[in-house]
Amino acid sequence: MRGSYYTFYQKASNAFRDHLTFSKILVVCTISGGGLVAYSDVRPFNNVYADAAQATIKKKKVVVLGTGWAGTSFLKNLKDPSLDVQVVSPCNYFAFTPLLPSVTVGTVEARSVVEPIRNIVKKKDFDVRFKEAECFKIDTVNQKVHCKSIQNTNVDGNQEFTVDYDYLVIAMGARANTFNTPGVVENAHFLKEVEDALRIRRSIIDCFERASLPSVSEDEKKRILHFVVVGGGPTGVEFAAELHDFLLEDLVKLYPDLEKYTTITLLEAGDHILSMFDKRITDFAEEKFKRDGINVKTGSMVVKVSDKSISLKERSTGETKDLPYGMVVWSTGIGTRPVVMDFMKQIGQGNRRVMATDEWLRVEGVPNVYALGDCATINQRKVMEDISAIFSKADKNKSGKLNVGDFAEVINDIIERYPQVELHLKSKKLKNFVELLQSNQDDAAKKATQLDIEKFKKALSEVDTKMKSLPPTAQVAAQQGEYLAKCFNRMKECEENPEGPIRFRDSGRHHFKPFRYKHLGQFAPLGGEQTAAQLPGDWVSMGYGAQWLWYSVYASKLVSWRTRILVIGDWGRRFIFGRDSSKI
Amino acid sequence: MRGSYYTFYQKASNAFRDHLTFSKILVVCTISGGGLVAYSDVRPFNNVYADAAQATIKKKKVVVLGTGWAGTSFLKNLKDPSLDVQVVSPCNYFAFTPLLPSVTVGTVEARSVVEPIRNIVKKKDFDVRFKEAECFKIDTVNQKVHCKSIQNTNVDGNQEFTVDYDYLVIAMGARANTFNTPGVVENAHFLKEVEDALRIRRSIIDCFERASLPSVSEDEKKRILHFVVVGGGPTGVEFAAELHDFLLEDLVKLYPDLEKYTTITLLEAGDHILSMFDKRITDFAEEKFKRDGINVKTGSMVVKVSDKSISLKERSTGETKDLPYGMVVWSTGIGTRPVVMDFMKQIGQGNRRVMATDEWLRVEGVPNVYALGDCATINQRKVMEDISAIFSKADKNKSGKLNVGDFAEVINDIIERYPQVELHLKSKKLKNFVELLQSNQDDAAKKATQLDIEKFKKALSEVDTKMKSLPPTAQVAAQQGEYLAKCFNRMKECEENPEGPIRFRDSGRHHFKPFRYKHLGQFAPLGGEQTAAQLPGDWVSMGYGAQWLWYSVYASKLVSWRTRILVIGDWGRRFIFGRDSSKI
Repeated sequence: MRGSYYTFYQKASNAFRDHLTFSKILVVCTISGGGLVAYSDVRPFNNVYADAAQATIKKKKVVVLGTGWAGTSFLKNLKDPSLDVQVVSPCNYFAFTPLLPSVTVGTVEARSVVEPIRNIVKKKDFDVRFKEAECFKIDTVNQKVHCKSIQNTNVDGNQEFTVDYDYLVIAMGARANTFNTPGVVENAHFLKEVEDALRIRRSIIDCFERASLPSVSEDEKKRILHFVVVGGGPTGVEFAAELHDFLLEDLVKLYPDLEKYTTITLLEAGDHILSMFDKRITDFAEEKFKRDGINVKTGSMVVKVSDKSISLKERSTGETKDLPYGMVVWSTGIGTRPVVMDFMKQIGQGNRRVMATDEWLRVEGVPNVYALGDCATINQRKVMEDISAIFSKADKNKSGKLNVGDFAEVINDIIERYPQVELHLKSKKLKNFVELLQSNQDDAAKKATQLDIEKFKKALSEVDTKMKSLPPTAQVAAQQGEYLAKCFNRMKECEENPEGPIRFRDSGRHHFKPFRYKHLGQFAPLGGEQTAAQLPGDWVSMGYGAQWLWYSVYASKLVSWRTRILVIGDWGRRFIFGRDSSKI
Repeated sequence: MRGSYYTFYQKASNAFRDHLTFSKILVVCTISGGGLVAYSDVRPFNNVYADAAQATIKKKKVVVLGTGWAGTSFLKNLKDPSLDVQVVSPCNYFAFTPLLPSVTVGTVEARSVVEPIRNIVKKKDFDVRFKEAECFKIDTVNQKVHCKSIQNTNVDGNQEFTVDYDYLVIAMGARANTFNTPGVVENAHFLKEVEDALRIRRSIIDCFERASLPSVSEDEKKRILHFVVVGGGPTGVEFAAELHDFLLEDLVKLYPDLEKYTTITLLEAGDHILSMFDKRITDFAEEKFKRDGINVKTGSMVVKVSDKSISLKERSTGETKDLPYGMVVWSTGIGTRPVVMDFMKQIGQGNRRVMATDEWLRVEGVPNVYALGDCATINQRKVMEDISAIFSKADKNKSGKLNVGDFAEVINDIIERYPQVELHLKSKKLKNFVELLQSNQDDAAKKATQLDIEKFKKALSEVDTKMKSLPPTAQVAAQQGEYLAKCFNRMKECEENPEGPIRFRDSGRHHFKPFRYKHLGQFAPLGGEQTAAQLPGDWVSMGYGAQWLWYSVYASKLVSWRTRILVIGDWGRRFIFGRDSSKI
């Protein structure tokens, strides 16, 4: 495959050298298409001609940082054979992270949820090279990323190298957020990577083996077998549920004397667990955990984690108390990675908590750099910022007054450019934009067929309150990766026939439609073959049926047939033989 | 199960307290049976009565150190419900070690070849308690073993405790033998434990990822991708073959640019690899490795291993040269563990290299302590040591002359007590013991119907040359474990009706037949779906057929249905999807 492609490429580039005119035309298309999409204002047309000669032998270099959901989804959907793609990541595999809580207790094996990234990209009909290394610096001036090997073996670790890019796709994900709570990094387990899950698995068995020793007192047994989960989000809840199943279904049979010492506590600083879900789900989950004997403790913040106890502060009373524990898993949300933080300072985003991109996933303030997934958020443009520009675009005859009819041409562009408008229409149960313009107005204005700028502003004043940032989920990251890949695939096409909305502040249209997230629903597995599912259209399902939906959705979403068969095999094995408790 | 047993036991011991006479009788049987088997001379009959009152509530404590082949086989076969068994081992699982070379490259997953020891023993109808700890001292005076936890977590590692024993079964296995070669421990991988196999797997992928980095020179790539195996025994050869298959079938597809840099070298100090096998197998293996491009380098000793190169000394010329490498696996045989070495000093075996037991697996010089598997060898009694005793037992009328007919009664005992006799008969193609007595004699003596002691000695003079120690294999360890468990199960029975051979130096018979190893054959997988098999009766098979024999034998030998199905599943997965190269 690769061999034959090389041959084709060599033949093609020889053809270019023989017929220089043809070559230039082709290259102009490719480069200007790419450049314009990436950052349409920075690349004067002259440059294109200047680069052309060189570009006959040089493909556009795309560097992807990270092989998580966003990066892998980007790579899988990328099809443009005129690109030279390099991937840099400390993991040489993609991990199906939604199954990590299952990996912590051996319901599913770690190796069943990973797929080597080289396996994923080797089917591409263009060159993708992977480098197992960590990016520690992004240099936008020279368009380079600085990387170093993460290996610490006799193979000389830490050697550094740089990779040049024309386009950079940052998809490095996030780190676990400790909120600077002292002792967390030293004493708690996180649950973000496959290695974390494997460490947790070993640690659970460690606790049980330790509590089996004759030299351990009763109190110490209780402490060692107290498992604490900090954070009542979907990951923390799923982990607590999986752990409960593991204890009940498997460990109790092997360590029957220890059952009475075992407890699980779920700590949540807010008032409820699963607060991002529908209230029915929250209630169901809290009720189920109560029945299962999992202590759910809401309204208390962790202020310190020492090697044997957690200091809790009651939010309502301000009281502090100590909770002895054997193992603690920390799952309270995400924070920005240091290398991304550095990069943000470099590009003038130093005062933000999370890196900002525009609706086309371009990092604000830097040409040719994109950011996907958990490492960035989309900084949505407010309608009110652009309100004058929108008004004047619609007001073609510059009369200072708008007929409702004048909007016909721009309504769709507005809705496409500003997703909050549609959300606002939905929440107010308004049929269309015209109704929106008529809302918030006095009766006289409603009847009037014309609007001035003040009335226009008034009509749209509440729209921006509907803006909300996307959740840091696999679903968002995967959709962003796919979106960006499709933009890259159609660069040339869309440069010629832009398909995006009108540029209200500029002339012309955007080349692409902005990224729009489609929420397909979310699961919260609660253990004991029960799951809560919240699907689009406020459809909520809880119990055994939803668990089977969960099985089928996750099996179908897995990245390859190999992982699919392995995961289904693991599920079957678990039903027949239970989970393995060997400490490896 | 366990609960109901307790109830039975309590009822039974209450019954004993109510009817003290009955209790005493029962306990006498149990204790004297046990004691006599373990060390028949040390326990005067008085003691039995003195201990009886206490023993009504105290079961005999058996402590097993280790959960390898010997220990696990012992536990699986133990059936005597009057025992209180404790198992101490740093691994809470049994590993099917013959598949470890397959685990190093992911042909089989680590978790498929292990079974939690608690799973194995929970089906027992008597109490077996497992402690995950390391024994660091054996105290034969107070009949205690000193243990410490091996955990290094927030669960306070290194806490120490002791376990009392009445019988101690040492089955701790051996450590890898470095022959004190400098740098081996620091730089080489061993292949004895599951963790070793996992480390090797990661290390192979590390080398390939490292060699893919742009900052690595051509020479460095060659070095990094040079895999060296030291030791041409079955393990080293199988690992080299598995590694070759992994490179050829899987890694070459994912790292096509690196194929030309990859080499495998197998170093052997002797003249041939697989020297313990039939010459046909050795030749076949060397020929196959040559065809496969695996460098087999015999006759060179490793004198030093640094972090990047191995110093070799040519045995014939004495020349030394350096061999740069990326990864080295050391598999040159076994040595005694430090704790066993300490124990040997304590019991007067300090000048030996390996701990000695007698033919009943009792450690020489210590009552009630047994040793199985790789941590000990059987120190076989020489016929010539006992020759006068044998002669006088046979010479019933004390005439100083033996009729050949006098032997009828003791021939079988001699053959049973001294396994070398049978081996000698076989090797000399003698039909029976009478023919042996007639061999080595002059014609006059052959015709004579009587032998004096000198002639008797002459007849048996060559017999002891046939003694050979057993190989350190899983097969030997498993048979020893089973043998010892059966002795424990039948202690009472065999004390009453001894079934062993006559005690030539003492009066009476041995309670049990001595341990006798049955060799069932040995495999040497050579890669590419070919295996060499050497079966009893000098039957040798090489090639694809033997590989299928290997598959079926290993699948049938696996410890549980769970592991059996998992391993077969792994083999199937490998055929369909290949081996996984994710670095976890």
